[in-house]
Amino acid sequence: MASSTPALKDELDIVIPTIRNLDFLEMWRPFFEPYHLIIVQDGDPSKNIKVPEGFDYELYNRNDINKILGPRASCISFKDSACRCFGYMVSKKKYIYTIDDDCFVAKDPSGADINALEQHIKNLLCPSTPHFFNTLYDPFRDGADFVRGYPFSLREGVPTAVSHGLWLNIPDYDAPTQLVKPLERNTRYVDMVLTIPKGTLFPMCGMNLAFDRELIGPAMYFGLMGDGQPIGRYDDMWAGWCCKVICDHLGLGIKTGLPYIYHSKASNPFVNLKKEYLGIFWQEDIIPFFQSHSFSKDCTSVQKCYVELSKQVKEKLGKVNPYFVKLADAMVTWIEAWDMLNPSSKDSAKLPNGSSK
Amino acid sequence: MASSTPALKDELDIVIPTIRNLDFLEMWRPFFEPYHLIIVQDGDPSKNIKVPEGFDYELYNRNDINKILGPRASCISFKDSACRCFGYMVSKKKYIYTIDDDCFVAKDPSGADINALEQHIKNLLCPSTPHFFNTLYDPFRDGADFVRGYPFSLREGVPTAVSHGLWLNIPDYDAPTQLVKPLERNTRYVDMVLTIPKGTLFPMCGMNLAFDRELIGPAMYFGLMGDGQPIGRYDDMWAGWCCKVICDHLGLGIKTGLPYIYHSKASNPFVNLKKEYLGIFWQEDIIPFFQSHSFSKDCTSVQKCYVELSKQVKEKLGKVNPYFVKLADAMVTWIEAWDMLNPSSKDSAKLPNGSSK
Repeated sequence: MASSTPALKDELDIVIPTIRNLDFLEMWRPFFEPYHLIIVQDGDPSKNIKVPEGFDYELYNRNDINKILGPRASCISFKDSACRCFGYMVSKKKYIYTIDDDCFVAKDPSGADINALEQHIKNLLCPSTPHFFNTLYDPFRDGADFVRGYPFSLREGVPTAVSHGLWLNIPDYDAPTQLVKPLERNTRYVDMVLTIPKGTLFPMCGMNLAFDRELIGPAMYFGLMGDGQPIGRYDDMWAGWCCKVICDHLGLGIKTGLPYIYHSKASNPFVNLKKEYLGIFWQEDIIPFFQSHSFSKDCTSVQKCYVELSKQVKEKLGKVNPYFVKLADAMVTWIEAWDMLNPSSKDSAKLPNGSSK
Repeated sequence: MASSTPALKDELDIVIPTIRNLDFLEMWRPFFEPYHLIIVQDGDPSKNIKVPEGFDYELYNRNDINKILGPRASCISFKDSACRCFGYMVSKKKYIYTIDDDCFVAKDPSGADINALEQHIKNLLCPSTPHFFNTLYDPFRDGADFVRGYPFSLREGVPTAVSHGLWLNIPDYDAPTQLVKPLERNTRYVDMVLTIPKGTLFPMCGMNLAFDRELIGPAMYFGLMGDGQPIGRYDDMWAGWCCKVICDHLGLGIKTGLPYIYHSKASNPFVNLKKEYLGIFWQEDIIPFFQSHSFSKDCTSVQKCYVELSKQVKEKLGKVNPYFVKLADAMVTWIEAWDMLNPSSKDSAKLPNGSSK
């Protein structure tokens, strides 16, 4: 890790939803070994997950989740990688990096291995600029700055809550696009990080994602997916839409772009279509819901925002499908569970645009 | 020009505000020679501008502008490159590319000359996606698409009205940043085009800019700068903010990113500071004005939007400084002059979100 970027070894946990591939951690060893890993096993708890020697980790299976959360465990998805959000909740660190086990170390155009974690930390430690677009992208990067016409009063920026990284090789396409373009690969390395502007939604992918859990953790809920649920593959999307409207309200920023990981394997498009099928319809109502959403002035913490959002989900999206009533209840349960495991964080985050209490 | 992109030879004019550098057109000859040039001389009309052999061009100096527009010539800046917008008005073509005479052909990372015009045409001919952010950027580019979670109903996109290109070497910094970072050079080639999201303002630079004059031409007014005016270097910024709110209202898109040109020479930061001085203050009122601005439902054409905007500029920014009262009047004069020279275009643009009349 370059000396210019703090490694944050004691302030960051890596959360991984299961590990099916033994090569995964070996490949990441030079970058991940200094960190603590939280592995959340998404399937059968009787199966053993092998973690190579030398890694500092804790592992949770379904039995552990049930034991720790009791009846509130109902908000954590089963047999779906959405269960990873349990790891965000049990972590005691300020920052989280989460990555899928089919994501490997990518190479930059010079052929060097990309230290994804280092770039995420850079992204999280420097401000975001959601209120005005900078045409040279991240103005805090070496060799860049704010361009002519960028208002000086906006140059301080806002704290960065989320760093969304990208993927070379297999792009993160939905099932219909996978079916239509089975051979498409992402080969373009775009050397850039930017802030997603305020008021704009984006599709947040959980494959290669870092965030500041003190700033936004309670909104990073991956919903109800997998076993017993009518949809899948909308876990990270749901979290992204909720996080974005909450960040916009609280004056926090979300960055996307660098770093890249190498996404090795396309998931099965037929299986994906089954999982996504209903989501493809529902999304047409979900997006206008989030686009027209606004929070009341009382929402001065992530928890308060999230609980208010859950009420509106129940009221407005509940009409689309009863699933959203169940999801809205799970959102409240999630916040209760979060506050149970993180009693000191309750409503205590220092927020740029509100009171700290 | 690659065969995959139409060259639009009969549909595009290149507008250049004066030519001080004889090498300029020689360097661009392979790319510009097939096109018609409109040169608008920004200074003393008695001085001769030399145009190398082989170029098809028309040249306008101040005397010509006065003759053509009569009293309405007052809306065209004198002794400032903002006069270039007269060229947008006299053109009879669908597309405009405008470039400064200190901008040369840049090289891509492989060392090949960049055909800036070709990339602008690509940008203008494929749709924009202002309603939702795509994390792989322009989804219409080869090798890219909409990612998982992008609503299908938004994938058609909207017509692209503006293509904003960037600059290698000398970045487009304001005077304070130039003074603080005299040696900073932009060396990063970011291989990307993206749509500026709806509701987000950006600093539009006129150095390397293309647009569809049928869609947005009447809003591409570069304001009152230079001789007799209290500010300079806000001509393109003003046009950009006006164009952006009008594009957002009318359902049109603005792209930024590729292509790059090579910006050869930094302008004098002391001269720039004098020009920018008041603008740096005023901008702090201008940006909130545009951010909170909305059009009435009657605004179904660019002209109608622009005239309504001028009234609000007078009412709200007139309080900041009497300059804005003068500017608001000039905005109306500009539309009168535009309609005089373009009688068939008056309120006739086909607009995606309104009636065509």
